[in-house]
Amino acid sequence: MSRQNNLSVMAHGPGDLRLEDIPIPEPGPNEVLLQMNAVGICRSDVHYWEHGRLGSFYMEKPMVLGHEGAGTVTKVGLGVQHLKVGDRVAIEPAYPLHNDQFCKSGRYNLSPTMFCSATPPYHGQLSQYYVHNANYCFKLPDCVSCEEGAFIEPLSVAIHACRRARVKMGSKILICGAGPIGLLNLLVAKAMGVAQVAICDLSISRLEKAKELGVNFIIKVEKQTPQDLAQKVWAVLGEMPCTSIECTGTEFCVQAAVYATQSGGTVLLVGHGPDLVSVPLLNAAIREVDIRGMFRYCNTYPMAIAMLASKKVDVKPLITHRFPLSRAIEAFEITRKQLGIKVMLKCDQV
Amino acid sequence: MSRQNNLSVMAHGPGDLRLEDIPIPEPGPNEVLLQMNAVGICRSDVHYWEHGRLGSFYMEKPMVLGHEGAGTVTKVGLGVQHLKVGDRVAIEPAYPLHNDQFCKSGRYNLSPTMFCSATPPYHGQLSQYYVHNANYCFKLPDCVSCEEGAFIEPLSVAIHACRRARVKMGSKILICGAGPIGLLNLLVAKAMGVAQVAICDLSISRLEKAKELGVNFIIKVEKQTPQDLAQKVWAVLGEMPCTSIECTGTEFCVQAAVYATQSGGTVLLVGHGPDLVSVPLLNAAIREVDIRGMFRYCNTYPMAIAMLASKKVDVKPLITHRFPLSRAIEAFEITRKQLGIKVMLKCDQV
Amino acid sequence: MSRQNNLSVMAHGPGDLRLEDIPIPEPGPNEVLLQMNAVGICRSDVHYWEHGRLGSFYMEKPMVLGHEGAGTVTKVGLGVQHLKVGDRVAIEPAYPLHNDQFCKSGRYNLSPTMFCSATPPYHGQLSQYYVHNANYCFKLPDCVSCEEGAFIEPLSVAIHACRRARVKMGSKILICGAGPIGLLNLLVAKAMGVAQVAICDLSISRLEKAKELGVNFIIKVEKQTPQDLAQKVWAVLGEMPCTSIECTGTEFCVQAAVYATQSGGTVLLVGHGPDLVSVPLLNAAIREVDIRGMFRYCNTYPMAIAMLASKKVDVKPLITHRFPLSRAIEAFEITRKQLGIKVMLKCDQV
Amino acid sequence: MSRQNNLSVMAHGPGDLRLEDIPIPEPGPNEVLLQMNAVGICRSDVHYWEHGRLGSFYMEKPMVLGHEGAGTVTKVGLGVQHLKVGDRVAIEPAYPLHNDQFCKSGRYNLSPTMFCSATPPYHGQLSQYYVHNANYCFKLPDCVSCEEGAFIEPLSVAIHACRRARVKMGSKILICGAGPIGLLNLLVAKAMGVAQVAICDLSISRLEKAKELGVNFIIKVEKQTPQDLAQKVWAVLGEMPCTSIECTGTEFCVQAAVYATQSGGTVLLVGHGPDLVSVPLLNAAIREVDIRGMFRYCNTYPMAIAMLASKKVDVKPLITHRFPLSRAIEAFEITRKQLGIKVMLKCDQV
Repeated sequence: MSRQNNLSVMAHGPGDLRLEDIPIPEPGPNEVLLQMNAVGICRSDVHYWEHGRLGSFYMEKPMVLGHEGAGTVTKVGLGVQHLKVGDRVAIEPAYPLHNDQFCKSGRYNLSPTMFCSATPPYHGQLSQYYVHNANYCFKLPDCVSCEEGAFIEPLSVAIHACRRARVKMGSKILICGAGPIGLLNLLVAKAMGVAQVAICDLSISRLEKAKELGVNFIIKVEKQTPQDLAQKVWAVLGEMPCTSIECTGTEFCVQAAVYATQSGGTVLLVGHGPDLVSVPLLNAAIREVDIRGMFRYCNTYPMAIAMLASKKVDVKPLITHRFPLSRAIEAFEITRKQLGIKVMLKCDQV
Repeated sequence: MSRQNNLSVMAHGPGDLRLEDIPIPEPGPNEVLLQMNAVGICRSDVHYWEHGRLGSFYMEKPMVLGHEGAGTVTKVGLGVQHLKVGDRVAIEPAYPLHNDQFCKSGRYNLSPTMFCSATPPYHGQLSQYYVHNANYCFKLPDCVSCEEGAFIEPLSVAIHACRRARVKMGSKILICGAGPIGLLNLLVAKAMGVAQVAICDLSISRLEKAKELGVNFIIKVEKQTPQDLAQKVWAVLGEMPCTSIECTGTEFCVQAAVYATQSGGTVLLVGHGPDLVSVPLLNAAIREVDIRGMFRYCNTYPMAIAMLASKKVDVKPLITHRFPLSRAIEAFEITRKQLGIKVMLKCDQV
Repeated sequence: MSRQNNLSVMAHGPGDLRLEDIPIPEPGPNEVLLQMNAVGICRSDVHYWEHGRLGSFYMEKPMVLGHEGAGTVTKVGLGVQHLKVGDRVAIEPAYPLHNDQFCKSGRYNLSPTMFCSATPPYHGQLSQYYVHNANYCFKLPDCVSCEEGAFIEPLSVAIHACRRARVKMGSKILICGAGPIGLLNLLVAKAMGVAQVAICDLSISRLEKAKELGVNFIIKVEKQTPQDLAQKVWAVLGEMPCTSIECTGTEFCVQAAVYATQSGGTVLLVGHGPDLVSVPLLNAAIREVDIRGMFRYCNTYPMAIAMLASKKVDVKPLITHRFPLSRAIEAFEITRKQLGIKVMLKCDQV
Repeated sequence: MSRQNNLSVMAHGPGDLRLEDIPIPEPGPNEVLLQMNAVGICRSDVHYWEHGRLGSFYMEKPMVLGHEGAGTVTKVGLGVQHLKVGDRVAIEPAYPLHNDQFCKSGRYNLSPTMFCSATPPYHGQLSQYYVHNANYCFKLPDCVSCEEGAFIEPLSVAIHACRRARVKMGSKILICGAGPIGLLNLLVAKAMGVAQVAICDLSISRLEKAKELGVNFIIKVEKQTPQDLAQKVWAVLGEMPCTSIECTGTEFCVQAAVYATQSGGTVLLVGHGPDLVSVPLLNAAIREVDIRGMFRYCNTYPMAIAMLASKKVDVKPLITHRFPLSRAIEAFEITRKQLGIKVMLKCDQV
């Protein structure tokens, strides 16, 4: 490891976020050193900053945050063939450490031993320089910007969600939650040929944003029963949605999604809620409504690049704030307050 | 309708079961009149007898019970081409009344408007003579007995369960509940090439029966947590089952099934429990364990006949009691007390 | 049958097409009488006119042509509940006559006993008044015109093709043939989120039309080997397409499609060629390129209506000619000469 | 590399097979050194011996043959965690060299850059000592012998075939060819719950063997048309098979398989024929009979071990000859003459 300046966003424990220099790492075999360009801030980054943990993952030492990044190859490790210095790449932050049965059968995201940027004990990408497995770095064509490349991580969540939800061309669907992930699901579902999307949320301003992005119907969640919400969904769509994508993690929305969904359809859980949720299981079971979840994503990056390159999805309207890396603390504050949709840190602007 | 003797098992209301003569019906167009041979008694028949209702279905007038039957064609209605007098047939008791989108797409069991034998307002099959839609009567080859034909109804539940559960050759699975449906799932899963089956139940005698039928591991459910049960399953199978088939309807087993099942696997709900169940949804979601239910079955009869004819499944060991139709009350009493596995009524023995 | 004027386009044998009055039919049970609005002319209509047969179907008596129609309900038969006088509907021209295993399992298009408009011995829809099975008439919303409704039949071919071809969001595909069906496949594939489409044809003018409709790459087929064409496809797409949709029926294109397609991909045959075709089967087999065909379509109409209503596909640019019913002979002549893409007959303009 | 005695079966060019000592290799990182126990001889081994090539693979230097082996771990390379000295393992002979998109999506057998034992330029397993990638060595339980372990390679071909052929419980199928691969497909299809299997071949003695292994119907192929053969299949099965597994590679059988198969079914090509085959493509296309091939297999070893351990398949009756390694030339001669079904070399008997 060489000793150079490498400004990074380091979480030191609950509430303690610092900008500090760390050494520039060296790429090992099959790795590349990247000069980072753009890194989006995710709610989970904020969670590590605020709580020092996420789910069962605890920070036991200071950790660089950030896992939604794109950068430029500046050094190539031994054995790397598909990348060269100067290539701009999107970084798939999580990959399996062993070639186990999950990998071999195409579901590597379920492997029990994964590396993931900014998941303890691994550092994240919010640095000027960052090393990653070259096999999970995907070259961006000229027509896809680094900001778009950084957006592929959350876009991948939506792609994996829509695939697991078996979203069908010409169908009508419900999305619960109009936050960043709900909105990305809207964009991806539309790109897959969905005819109509209804979206529900507590916040009028989020629903307005969904409207701008082309949602067909917005439903403001009020004091009501899950069954009432389901009926409202049917009323606006004119029929039951064949798929419901739940992005809030709340028991209320899980229940409403089950009631709302057409027999034979799918409720897809993106949002994470409490360990135990009270589910209308009989209703789902006897109508063969499948309840499926998801963990991260797999095999989405090449497809996402192709979709961005061909303008099938446009994520740029979701970028509401941009900051140079040196103003990262401010950027995290904005994200914490949920003042925008996606906040981008420009790591090449210090 | 001609006025002839047609001894039938009629439920008149909670606790009031009578053997009485009703007219012999006439087959209309596309219908056949059947002289009934064997009809199995199902727990749902007993439920109508005891409570006058099942789920949201209420008996508003006396109803003939029985929906697991086989009979012999004695009269053929207008337009029936594939059946003739003398053919022995298995009866698929439920069929859609309208050719709606569910029918057109191959999931007719989800159609909202179904006819079903012994589901109000429709009479069942526990009669000497019974009329049914010819399109849902399936000719039995000589090598399949009427008792086996009558068994196709519960066997269909297991076939549909194993298909919806995506049971795979060479895999290891868990079945919760060693009652008739659990045992049939065992037989079908084995016929599909499953390598090892673990089954759990509260009752040692049921578990012993499962052992006789070839289960690999039995687990007696004790006072324990669902997580404890899951660990016991892993211990006996040597790994996590990739599929769990839940036949008890209890919250305890639903939870244990979720915890037990391998990432990327399926929990299939056959048993019906309460409206709301507390489910470890986060555990299921982030491991992509799909939770799927089922309603009856569809497209199972021809396959079930082929399996019985080729001896891929042998249901005969599950028939523990036989009674002539005239002793139906006694037969129902046996079923109510769960003294055997399957009780058959011989409708051609009065 | 009442005796009224009902101008119809009747094929009397090879080369003998006449406009003549036939009786207005009466709707039977579950049927509706339609006043026809728009009917598109298909190449197969022209084939019956020119040859008096198509494949194994021979006209044994004069037959009204036309199977791509939309009309307005003017009389409702017994038992029809979902339609009323004044409803505008798209007509699914082919439906199964028996509820056989293909119907029950959701592939009714494969049923051996089908009714199909303008397939002997059944009359077609090119009349002022026409009776059809109400269950295969689909109500159009206000925002979908009758011309668009008439276009659902060929659109259904493309929808079924793209589904059978397993067209995937973000992928790159090849379409062979830029005639009406090739162009419709282009529109549907784009609506499903395909990133890039290459299309090949002999005709520059057809390729130009494809360009107008948004194809990414056009390839003029010259004197070359199928392998050469495959290489050209790779060159323009930058990689092998994961799906190839073959709409020409020629051996040359079948071979090129196999060579071109990525390992693990699909070649979908829409075009009909000779009985025996010389196929590079070893190449396809050892690369697990599936070769799949299709027959008509099933379960496409509701989805197609939703897609037209939501503007996910716009078929209007494909309508190049319109004629009143009284000028049908002229319209057929135009179609025979392949002077446009889709020729519409306005049956409500006599 | 240490210099010890390591007797091996080395092909030196067309017709030139020698038993000779080579050095015992050293296991590198993630590799294991195996003392070989049993290795089956495959027709492709014979082909390399006779012709010095197979398909597009040419031997450019002497090559040890054999790719159907099982052995005992005698030395463990750096980083190997799941195996230890003394473990008996089955060897998956082919694995991908790069973690490309085919690997990541679960179809690693389609990767363009594979290592494969006894495929040039890589040596095979017919040695006393052999080194292999530990990740593709699968520990055998005590109840599975090394001979059974060696049989997993051809068994995997049949497992992959039956999965790609979408073999369904309770269905009827056709297998073309009663050689080793046809017979293994028979065993696997039966294990998956197939109700009836018809098998056809030119050789009465092969058909007799199929009969012993439980096939339901045998069909001797005579001078007849493919359509005639198809009709014979329908006659014995009583209906069209929904799947046909073609193991001969002949144009005659490919055609017969297409004609024979039920609409909506699958023809699966296991046998390799000439580059171009005349296929009744229109017949297949308009009946939606999918034509699918396969290349080797993937994700079969753990499943195959479970099936052997649970006695769902019994491959032992297929082992007709056994020889010590020192009599390998004789064993190859037997295989070349097709005198038995599977010839095993006992590499631990010198």
